[in-house]
Amino acid sequence: MNLLLLEPAEVRSDGTSVVSAWRARHLRDVLRVQPGHEVRAGMVDGGLGTCTVLALDEDTVTLKCTFDVTPIRPSVDLLLALPRPKVMQRLWAQMAALGVGQIMLTNATRVERNYFDTHVLEPDNYRPLLLEGLQQARDTHLPVVSIHRRLKVLLEDDLDSLCPNGARLVAHPGSKETFTAALGTNPAHQRGETRTLLAVGPEGGWTDFELHLLAAHGFAAVGMGGRTLRSDTACVALLALLHEALR
Amino acid sequence: MNLLLLEPAEVRSDGTSVVSAWRARHLRDVLRVQPGHEVRAGMVDGGLGTCTVLALDEDTVTLKCTFDVTPIRPSVDLLLALPRPKVMQRLWAQMAALGVGQIMLTNATRVERNYFDTHVLEPDNYRPLLLEGLQQARDTHLPVVSIHRRLKVLLEDDLDSLCPNGARLVAHPGSKETFTAALGTNPAHQRGETRTLLAVGPEGGWTDFELHLLAAHGFAAVGMGGRTLRSDTACVALLALLHEALR
Repeated sequence: MNLLLLEPAEVRSDGTSVVSAWRARHLRDVLRVQPGHEVRAGMVDGGLGTCTVLALDEDTVTLKCTFDVTPIRPSVDLLLALPRPKVMQRLWAQMAALGVGQIMLTNATRVERNYFDTHVLEPDNYRPLLLEGLQQARDTHLPVVSIHRRLKVLLEDDLDSLCPNGARLVAHPGSKETFTAALGTNPAHQRGETRTLLAVGPEGGWTDFELHLLAAHGFAAVGMGGRTLRSDTACVALLALLHEALR
Repeated sequence: MNLLLLEPAEVRSDGTSVVSAWRARHLRDVLRVQPGHEVRAGMVDGGLGTCTVLALDEDTVTLKCTFDVTPIRPSVDLLLALPRPKVMQRLWAQMAALGVGQIMLTNATRVERNYFDTHVLEPDNYRPLLLEGLQQARDTHLPVVSIHRRLKVLLEDDLDSLCPNGARLVAHPGSKETFTAALGTNPAHQRGETRTLLAVGPEGGWTDFELHLLAAHGFAAVGMGGRTLRSDTACVALLALLHEALR
């Protein structure tokens, strides 16, 4: 645990918090804290700082929290054609760790419709995984997740309000354009708009129709060499490249 | 299956090959091949090309193979502090898909010794996973795997013969150096040596002693921003960044 992440409701108005269950056990048995010790901590969608251990007993740890640093919200958003459930499940924590502001999951021609009916897309399933990723990367910004059953409706009706500004890129195996080059010539990026939305297709790729639709809505193609990668590998690699290009 | 990958022993001297079991079923039921159809194919550690379907029956597919393209061996090698078995198991296929010439797995202070005693490091376990990654990425170069119980012995006695030339980089969360910048000033890279060896530490990081030892053996530090990532996410992200910097 690189960061003790607390929900807003877990922190009282005087800044104290009592944690129990696995977090108490981790503090006591792995980090071996004692009263007076400080641990790195943060509040979900809030600040970063430290918690000082006030007291420990068998089941709980009482902490005094100070969250005095406001972490920067990741400037990258993701529009992802829904991968198969097993792959999606592996991605939640990794996306949150790499840093994503918004995750829009969409249908596409080469996405199987029954992928949308799994527990993998339930908040009760993915929220703990996103928090795990945030704790790994010491961030507090929980990615905002939305699920879209029709790509065309998303692009035509919803995207401008979900992502009102910023550069739009679409990862396309056929493109020779690097992230750095694509951002360098991007009008939104040149205007100083700080957010970047990256669209990542399904295992079998976007169809030509979908690529045209994305292009018509301002998505410029970027590539990363000739190798075809599994969705989760591609997604991690692409997010890393985009963050690096924005660094 | 993006590529039908055959072992050298599976291809007769006249270029024909008979495949059975899951590959025959995949050709017949998923790709729905018929006599005369061509499929993309390759030979492990050999060429790339096509196989033409000669005949099908209930259990087998007979093919005529032409391997006329020699793929370029990935110019990246990896020296990886052995992650915990579950994470290592997830990495095999991804490393092969991203493209790695050699994988040297090593002990380090923050690696638990019992990680070395798992079936995850048996060739019978990892070879099929590496092949899966090659088939995904349409490559034929099977990464060469070696296992090293002592980092110091590896660096002092074995590394110069395993990796006789090329740039050496070590990923270090504290470094602000990008891959592009680090390669730009690297003497081996400037001399035109084409290989690059990347060292990736354990979950808890290299110790100061290990970092000094790596530096003494020519490893220059590179970073990728302030976020701490799980070993497998970090490994995929770092390999993607290195390949991109070499592109």
